[in-house]
Amino acid sequence: MSGRVDSTSGGTGGAAERRRLLDRIDGPADLKGLSDEELAQVAQEVRELIIDTIGEIGGHFGANLGTCEIAVALHSLLDSPRDKILWDVGHQAYPHKVLTGRRDHLHTIRKYGGLAPFCSIFESEHDIMGAGHASTAISYAVALKEAMRKGYCEDGHVVAVVGDGALTGGVAFEALHNAGGMELPIVILLNDNGMSIAPNVGALARLFNRLRLNPKLHHAREDIEDALTKLPLGIGERIERLGPILKESLKAYWAPGLFFEELNLAYVGVIDGHDVRAVREAVREALHAERPVVVHCKTIKGKGFAPAEEGGLEGMEKWHAAKAGSILNRAPAPKKPPKPSPKPTYTEVFGRALVAECRRDPRVVGITAAMNSGTGLNILQRELPDRYYDVGIAEQHAVLFAAGLALAGAKPVAAIYSTFLQRAYDQIVHDVCLQRLNVVFAMDRAGLVGDDGPTHHGAFDISYLRCLPHIVLMAPRDEAMLVRMLRTALLYDDGPIALRYPRGEAVGVPIPEDPEPIEIGRAEVLAAGERVALVGYGFGVRVALEAADLLGEVHGIEPTVVDARFCKPLDEELLLRLAAEHELLVTIEENQLAGGFGSAVVELLSDKGLAGTTRVVRFGLPDRFVTHGAPALLRREVGLTGEHVAARVAELVLARSEFVA
Amino acid sequence: MSGRVDSTSGGTGGAAERRRLLDRIDGPADLKGLSDEELAQVAQEVRELIIDTIGEIGGHFGANLGTCEIAVALHSLLDSPRDKILWDVGHQAYPHKVLTGRRDHLHTIRKYGGLAPFCSIFESEHDIMGAGHASTAISYAVALKEAMRKGYCEDGHVVAVVGDGALTGGVAFEALHNAGGMELPIVILLNDNGMSIAPNVGALARLFNRLRLNPKLHHAREDIEDALTKLPLGIGERIERLGPILKESLKAYWAPGLFFEELNLAYVGVIDGHDVRAVREAVREALHAERPVVVHCKTIKGKGFAPAEEGGLEGMEKWHAAKAGSILNRAPAPKKPPKPSPKPTYTEVFGRALVAECRRDPRVVGITAAMNSGTGLNILQRELPDRYYDVGIAEQHAVLFAAGLALAGAKPVAAIYSTFLQRAYDQIVHDVCLQRLNVVFAMDRAGLVGDDGPTHHGAFDISYLRCLPHIVLMAPRDEAMLVRMLRTALLYDDGPIALRYPRGEAVGVPIPEDPEPIEIGRAEVLAAGERVALVGYGFGVRVALEAADLLGEVHGIEPTVVDARFCKPLDEELLLRLAAEHELLVTIEENQLAGGFGSAVVELLSDKGLAGTTRVVRFGLPDRFVTHGAPALLRREVGLTGEHVAARVAELVLARSEFVA
Repeated sequence: MSGRVDSTSGGTGGAAERRRLLDRIDGPADLKGLSDEELAQVAQEVRELIIDTIGEIGGHFGANLGTCEIAVALHSLLDSPRDKILWDVGHQAYPHKVLTGRRDHLHTIRKYGGLAPFCSIFESEHDIMGAGHASTAISYAVALKEAMRKGYCEDGHVVAVVGDGALTGGVAFEALHNAGGMELPIVILLNDNGMSIAPNVGALARLFNRLRLNPKLHHAREDIEDALTKLPLGIGERIERLGPILKESLKAYWAPGLFFEELNLAYVGVIDGHDVRAVREAVREALHAERPVVVHCKTIKGKGFAPAEEGGLEGMEKWHAAKAGSILNRAPAPKKPPKPSPKPTYTEVFGRALVAECRRDPRVVGITAAMNSGTGLNILQRELPDRYYDVGIAEQHAVLFAAGLALAGAKPVAAIYSTFLQRAYDQIVHDVCLQRLNVVFAMDRAGLVGDDGPTHHGAFDISYLRCLPHIVLMAPRDEAMLVRMLRTALLYDDGPIALRYPRGEAVGVPIPEDPEPIEIGRAEVLAAGERVALVGYGFGVRVALEAADLLGEVHGIEPTVVDARFCKPLDEELLLRLAAEHELLVTIEENQLAGGFGSAVVELLSDKGLAGTTRVVRFGLPDRFVTHGAPALLRREVGLTGEHVAARVAELVLARSEFVA
Repeated sequence: MSGRVDSTSGGTGGAAERRRLLDRIDGPADLKGLSDEELAQVAQEVRELIIDTIGEIGGHFGANLGTCEIAVALHSLLDSPRDKILWDVGHQAYPHKVLTGRRDHLHTIRKYGGLAPFCSIFESEHDIMGAGHASTAISYAVALKEAMRKGYCEDGHVVAVVGDGALTGGVAFEALHNAGGMELPIVILLNDNGMSIAPNVGALARLFNRLRLNPKLHHAREDIEDALTKLPLGIGERIERLGPILKESLKAYWAPGLFFEELNLAYVGVIDGHDVRAVREAVREALHAERPVVVHCKTIKGKGFAPAEEGGLEGMEKWHAAKAGSILNRAPAPKKPPKPSPKPTYTEVFGRALVAECRRDPRVVGITAAMNSGTGLNILQRELPDRYYDVGIAEQHAVLFAAGLALAGAKPVAAIYSTFLQRAYDQIVHDVCLQRLNVVFAMDRAGLVGDDGPTHHGAFDISYLRCLPHIVLMAPRDEAMLVRMLRTALLYDDGPIALRYPRGEAVGVPIPEDPEPIEIGRAEVLAAGERVALVGYGFGVRVALEAADLLGEVHGIEPTVVDARFCKPLDEELLLRLAAEHELLVTIEENQLAGGFGSAVVELLSDKGLAGTTRVVRFGLPDRFVTHGAPALLRREVGLTGEHVAARVAELVLARSEFVA
């Protein structure tokens, strides 16, 4: 495997020489005893390895270039895994992976069977916590330090590396608040690059910008301290009289991190996060404190890769992740000619359709929680910035903000990935469904998302939403239906309505310019056949159509194919008729089977006392977490392919025929 | 209705005279033009009405006595409902209800068919948002002000009244952060009484305590400003040179609310929240600001009711809510002799059992999110304070804290109401189930909770948890099984495990001192019968047993009765046998039917191709939100009674018999 990496970077010339240090780092112990200069050199070699490897195979990019020095500094100071280094989210943990024995496997990251895209407790003893969603690491730091204090595990240091974007997530605040209250000696290394995927928004971004822009803050402090000691006696005494109040206030005043000081967290900063020596010094000092300390490091997302580093915010956002083959010789690869007529992604189609809906109806607005390009809302931001809201990594507030706008008569569309919407579940129940507000949920990344793996699969939304009163659930089979459903959702005014659609390329069908709404709760028969009814929901319809083709071609069975379109309310009339008229009723969905769409169908037949009229077979995601890798591979693994469905259906129908015969 | 209220307070003597002002307040308009003294008098009359009424009928108490002056001040200044007054949680909104046309209905609050326990958009145009769960109001304030700015609704002022406890909830921080970023002119009235239900914990509690304890803070500020203006020229110039940095820092320094200032929120405080004039002045000033302002009001939970006000933290906690009949003549009513052998609540049984488990195994700890007596963890806090954690109103962090402790080898028990656990859903998915950590979830208040109503019913947990891989779900039929299940959960070491149990009185069975664990996934046959199998889950077993009695007595049917005990994994073998041997298989649970326990049974039979062998009838909560009121009334309304189940089963069996005949 290591040969593979060498050959990857071989093209740049002299790589072997420049990697003379990193090649000897097989674990954190190998960093001990290196000089500051050597450590800086290791960090640079890690950076080059990442540029070369990720530029070729694709993956999270910019944030990892920003943490090379931090990872080296922490692993050279600390004794992992006894000391706990926690990487919030984990998309910036590639340097950590490289330094902890996974250097020669980096080229497998995010690939099926390869290294996990984020930190994984199942992959390495150095990955202390699993993640993928933001803002959790401070909580783990508090818990682990408390566990050490109590003797549940060996004592050691605990350092959580948290991005400034992740700090806006409410749970991070809950944890800061608890840390300040418990006064546990943990270190929170604030990796401040000013960005989530897009530039950060909100009050903390302003605050950190101010701190970043004031390199002279430290000198100011010294100057004022000096001036005050020279005050004439009378005034000095007068100030003295105010005693402890003044002292405390002054302490807070001197520290630029008042926000943290007010939460009872000590603050050290601003440190240049690309200066290994400075980071080591600041962290070493922080490790000796007897209470929580925030070490504020400024880093550059994309550091060392000119198109990111010098491309401003746009450059940084563009290079958050690198596409496979996008970098050659440490520079952007020449663009390949575009495909003749590439299919759009569902995300792009949604983004454009939302702009069109906003133009049609002034009440429509779009809301994202720091995923503006991921949700397609970057198009809205560009076209109609006044109708676009990015609330930061704050899904709970995003949904409440939508609820509030709906109360006031607007038509908010909360565009949130299926997996991230989990974080706003209580707001969906308590603030949207119970209040029956007209909020539209656009759930991108429903189903298996591929490379990002189990933390990001949208595997549960049907189950966790279907149990809620007042909500309408739908899923389009293609991009034409997506825009019709969005239109439908915005015309609907009897409560919340949600649509889910998969990651990636759409089907390639023409998209209506003036989309016709569909009837709520009405399914669509795509093919009338016999013996078998294949009922798909969302992506499941694609699988149903493929299976139908195969059943016809290979087995001579011409099944009925139905696009359920709605999971709630179900098209009960049609489903009961299908059950009555077919031997086999097959449901196909890309969601956990438990409580999902097929479950709804089975419940219906049971409640109507018609469960015995037909055999129901449900296809969907199994009762386990599915790994990462290309979606096609994953779908094959879980049997969510036309081929698999057709084979299983044929088997059942054949068995039945034999039985009947 | 108004006569009823008069008679309620009649006993105190002179009430009619003292209420001379409040009786004329039929809506906020009637407060306009009153003098400060008159407004203070109205506030006091509201307070007395609450003491008299709630003391008699029971309900949220202490927090409402703390907001009488605030409610009067806001409604006298503002023009509701054009101006939006938002009450976070809403359990402190009784004075608001009294002032907005509901004075004469206060005695119906929390009763079936009566006033809602919290604010309800379905009850009054003055209840701008619905709530019940904490920490949501700031988000609504941001959204409503933005909606006004955009013209989605009429322009007006927006004031959110938020408790200091609610501020610890992450979503409140997300909203503060967004408010500071958007710079919308909203007013956040911080109602700081130092308490959630129990005393607040964490860094903000320290901070607010410091502010509370420094009444001279304002004078200090003036003193220092004065001193600095008199500095000798040289030093003054030197400070001057530092320019804008210093200015900004000084501004922040002067303000006691640095935490808020750092989030770009202006701060006014500390105001005496029981001084109508002071609150009016501060809010009036804040309404003229062009950015968000926090008005920090200090209030006393239980103000005006001596046992609360003078009983210290314990008194305040005790009088968070008043029991029906607990107050007579504005003093605690003489205690009635206790019942001969009262049944314990599930909460108490759990609390004591957890202490016993902690004594057995040093790895066991208990975690609550600011619900220490509600969850029974007050017993642990008293007995083994070192094993007890209260993280504040912060369910997300509570679950992550549990995950971290589990990673370190501890055995954390997260005791969180079913409804509040919704707020930690993503952490359950992403941090506990995916990581397969040994976290025990003790879900109190599962099912219909009664008076607190739809925001608090634990109606969804089976559905939202059953779809998650790696989790074990169970529910006890009585308190003996509860302690056995807790023991079972703590011995289980293959991932997360959750148990749900209802609010209120347990069954009254003996509780084993050394509880025997039960086999994971094994149901228990309580009675072997024929034709009908009644399979209950948790509280559903009680209903099944009642129904079985009635079926035997009234209809001569002796059904099989089964305690499913586990919803995941199901006892498949037994269930399939039941299906094969009975005409009718009845499932009973106190959860939404969609995706619930019965759904799991139906899925099983369908997947095994055995759906036709028996008719399944599912009893549970309907696909709508259930109102508030006494649990018995609510269960009758939704048909979750032995009577209803027996009648329906008899009807079906009879029909079948006729059909067969």
